[in-house]
Amino acid sequence: MWPIANMTRPSEDDLIARYFRPLATDPGALRLGDDCATLTPPDGHELVLKTDAVAEGIHFFSDDSWKFVAQKALRVNLSDLAAKGARPLGYLLSLALPSDWTEPQLADFAAGLAEDQATYAISLLGGDTIKSPKGLVITITVIGAVPTGRMARRAGAREGDQIFVSGTIGDSALGLKLRLDHALAAKLDLDAMAQSYLLDRYLLPRPRSVLAQAVLDHANGAMDVSDGLVLDLTRMAKVSGVDAELEIDEVPLSAAARQALTSDPSLVSTLVTGGDDYELLLTVPAARSDAFADAANRAGVVVTRIGTIVPGNGNLHLSGKTGDLLEIQATGYSHF
Amino acid sequence: MWPIANMTRPSEDDLIARYFRPLATDPGALRLGDDCATLTPPDGHELVLKTDAVAEGIHFFSDDSWKFVAQKALRVNLSDLAAKGARPLGYLLSLALPSDWTEPQLADFAAGLAEDQATYAISLLGGDTIKSPKGLVITITVIGAVPTGRMARRAGAREGDQIFVSGTIGDSALGLKLRLDHALAAKLDLDAMAQSYLLDRYLLPRPRSVLAQAVLDHANGAMDVSDGLVLDLTRMAKVSGVDAELEIDEVPLSAAARQALTSDPSLVSTLVTGGDDYELLLTVPAARSDAFADAANRAGVVVTRIGTIVPGNGNLHLSGKTGDLLEIQATGYSHF
Repeated sequence: MWPIANMTRPSEDDLIARYFRPLATDPGALRLGDDCATLTPPDGHELVLKTDAVAEGIHFFSDDSWKFVAQKALRVNLSDLAAKGARPLGYLLSLALPSDWTEPQLADFAAGLAEDQATYAISLLGGDTIKSPKGLVITITVIGAVPTGRMARRAGAREGDQIFVSGTIGDSALGLKLRLDHALAAKLDLDAMAQSYLLDRYLLPRPRSVLAQAVLDHANGAMDVSDGLVLDLTRMAKVSGVDAELEIDEVPLSAAARQALTSDPSLVSTLVTGGDDYELLLTVPAARSDAFADAANRAGVVVTRIGTIVPGNGNLHLSGKTGDLLEIQATGYSHF
Repeated sequence: MWPIANMTRPSEDDLIARYFRPLATDPGALRLGDDCATLTPPDGHELVLKTDAVAEGIHFFSDDSWKFVAQKALRVNLSDLAAKGARPLGYLLSLALPSDWTEPQLADFAAGLAEDQATYAISLLGGDTIKSPKGLVITITVIGAVPTGRMARRAGAREGDQIFVSGTIGDSALGLKLRLDHALAAKLDLDAMAQSYLLDRYLLPRPRSVLAQAVLDHANGAMDVSDGLVLDLTRMAKVSGVDAELEIDEVPLSAAARQALTSDPSLVSTLVTGGDDYELLLTVPAARSDAFADAANRAGVVVTRIGTIVPGNGNLHLSGKTGDLLEIQATGYSHF
């Protein structure tokens, strides 16, 4: 499209050729030389679609490397595909560039995507570059595939299911706190390794793509934890028409998070209501729980049982010693 | 995702329920109650994908109604599908909201989308809402379908093809000029009807979705004109490995554009290099030109022959009286 005001810059065509065409490895991307891309799901599969955006000053910091920003933008979307049991196929990228972008930044951005394309076996399918009113804004639409009719659903949680999460919860929320308050690490008596671990967990999600098959094989209810465990579990309970009992003391924490919690026990609230975990939240029939945990472990991911689905209509019940200490605010959250 | 800083606002879940769930009419959208949507192309079809963004102060003005802004964001994408001969199926919406958004604005936005969904027979499939660093930024990914292997290509132009455009060219570029310079209408001696026609053409694209079948049936080379006729035709010639002869006096102009041109003949350059036309640029074998024009007319769209594809390697040749007057700059254009 024609912007209201033009600037003198290398042409969009040149930049696409230099930085983005090498990423368009799928034949359907037509080397980014057409208006649109084509895509056919593998035989017996349907497509799974997701769009998510990240913006400078909102989801990442202005001094973050564009390499990691690109990877974060892609990975928050891949995390949703993993939660649905979907195998990623490709993505479309819409890039709103601030007026002071530099070619080294763009080269970093493309390098980050190239690295992740290799890791997650996907291709850029198409894209769009515009001038941003302010700051870098990246919107990615990912496309994955599942055997037709098999997408794991957020609404699939059933009475008696065991609730699992992958990995550890709350690290990213602590990482954000550390990023915003440079005095906090000392206050919490965190060693350097714990501090850098938490900061890294905020900087870069690790989508659990390797769990997709275990999700398909075993999960009833499935979503990723991006807006905080408490809110996301409440959402799953609500849309599934059940209640969830969360055994708060069972929520898996990293060594770094446990260090922080020792110094300030009230941080438990941050851990379970903070966001950006990008872990999987799954409910599994009791009879399949062991098989599921085995499958996850074989895929290299620790999963932890944190509660049970019970009859109800969308409420979350907290149990455990810590539960009594906790004033949970499942609402009050907003994306804007 | 968890924003760096929270604000007190109605929850995202509430807003989705109120404004966007009613738009998610396709069963695959799962009432926006899941992380992802599912989609299967119709039998014998492949999917056609496009993402395009519009931003406040770049592609639209801050005082534009959010209804029209929403429609513009959707329609610029639908225009690409039409150019590929694709039937639209659905779209994903990523909405970056400025901090001062109001619910009436959001209601207008949703109403604009609802109206266009009815017009173009599509459904919202999924979306994402974030806080924008500044201004409204809307990214839409549209998904359409064509019979497998039949997508019309930008690279399809062949020697001897006749070059056609739909509708009229340059109206939107003039509309933008009028919008930026309130004294211009008087200078150009434009009557009120011409002025409002041109302003409207800038405000709201009319994607030529009704031409999709004629494109599939007859076109060799196909794209939409969004960055200016001269640049886009040059791009098509380049990617097709041919030259294009543009008979500049044949380029179809509206009555309003002709009024403007009478007052200022130098505006011809604006007309053919300005952007936001969202008309179709097609090349058709000479033997099919009449059948194509008939099919377009039956669909209610006037198409005009404006030149010929000749051997070459990506150059544009201008011919006609006006061609001599014209200093065309096919480059120097940038999206950012």
